[in-house]
Amino acid sequence: MNTIYEECIKACIECMEACNHCYDSCLKEEDVSMMAGCIRLDRECADICALAIKSMQSNSPFAKQICQLCADICEACGNECKKHEHDHCQKCAEACFRCAEECHKLAA
Amino acid sequence: MNTIYEECIKACIECMEACNHCYDSCLKEEDVSMMAGCIRLDRECADICALAIKSMQSNSPFAKQICQLCADICEACGNECKKHEHDHCQKCAEACFRCAEECHKLAA
Amino acid sequence: MNTIYEECIKACIECMEACNHCYDSCLKEEDVSMMAGCIRLDRECADICALAIKSMQSNSPFAKQICQLCADICEACGNECKKHEHDHCQKCAEACFRCAEECHKLAA
Amino acid sequence: MNTIYEECIKACIECMEACNHCYDSCLKEEDVSMMAGCIRLDRECADICALAIKSMQSNSPFAKQICQLCADICEACGNECKKHEHDHCQKCAEACFRCAEECHKLAA
Repeated sequence: MNTIYEECIKACIECMEACNHCYDSCLKEEDVSMMAGCIRLDRECADICALAIKSMQSNSPFAKQICQLCADICEACGNECKKHEHDHCQKCAEACFRCAEECHKLAA
Repeated sequence: MNTIYEECIKACIECMEACNHCYDSCLKEEDVSMMAGCIRLDRECADICALAIKSMQSNSPFAKQICQLCADICEACGNECKKHEHDHCQKCAEACFRCAEECHKLAA
Repeated sequence: MNTIYEECIKACIECMEACNHCYDSCLKEEDVSMMAGCIRLDRECADICALAIKSMQSNSPFAKQICQLCADICEACGNECKKHEHDHCQKCAEACFRCAEECHKLAA
Repeated sequence: MNTIYEECIKACIECMEACNHCYDSCLKEEDVSMMAGCIRLDRECADICALAIKSMQSNSPFAKQICQLCADICEACGNECKKHEHDHCQKCAEACFRCAEECHKLAA
């Protein structure tokens, strides 16, 4: 595999997992209404991470552009998650910001 | 395109649209907690419809199996949606049941 | 559904179908080697169209950015497809350029 | 995260990576025509692995059914890949069979 992508793929895999887990957990919280923004962004973020992973693993000519977009969505998701005290939200925020950083580096 | 798939692709496209719209609308309802099951199944259903469409449009050797699974998920989503009085839920239920029927026919 | 997206969703659905069909047809051509670039871009283009459709149908806050990226990939795919004389490639190129135009309009 | 899924998610992630890499490598081989079946199944397999991962990570009520389908597609992809001597095909076949095994276990 193309090794320039290694760190970024790893960060995207971890972010995708954190977002899918946070999505599931938010849907099970008592006050789902408060988590609506988080649910929506978790889904967006998990989906764009999946696309970024696929693009890097298959050497897409658009890998950098997809990672640029992924960075933007990760940041938005991280900013929403960090507002909530739930452990799954805090961990998700961390994974999102780390992923945004790796995606930015790659897209630069 | 392979014409045996035509009706089923059409039903999947309509179901995917109804589910994505219902998903968005549920997240904006006042009582999101009541809609948690609907949100989750709308997402599952929109995603499997998208995969079924891709598999039929590209003549996948697994198109029938994917449509069989799509039928099951459409039925589950339709059953959840029809419990709720919101217009977007009722319309989504209809689209889900119609899609389940077409997918069953194709998979048979 | 959000009507500002109507034309763009329609163009994306037609482009996705044309790309998936072209992908399948290219894999069945006698000289697959000549079609390698087309196969790759058909896949990329069908996948980003699917994401753009989902983002518009669910009112994603990133719909415009996703459509901007979709426009770029559609143009690249259209430029590759129009080099080939096969009917499926020529039709795919047309669908790609029309979709690129609608996505550009939306993203503007 | 739900730990009953841990091994299966790991196998799906490795299989998805092997399939995406094999897909890219097949498109760059001298004789692409011979690789057409492999290219097609690599794509199918990478896509269903991605869906299986998402379903397990988000505790989908359909995770088992999706993994059952994933197992079938992994086996078909592994059987095609193992016919070819390229290193990327042999490695992909291994990852596919390992993933099929984990998915079967989970779906049982």
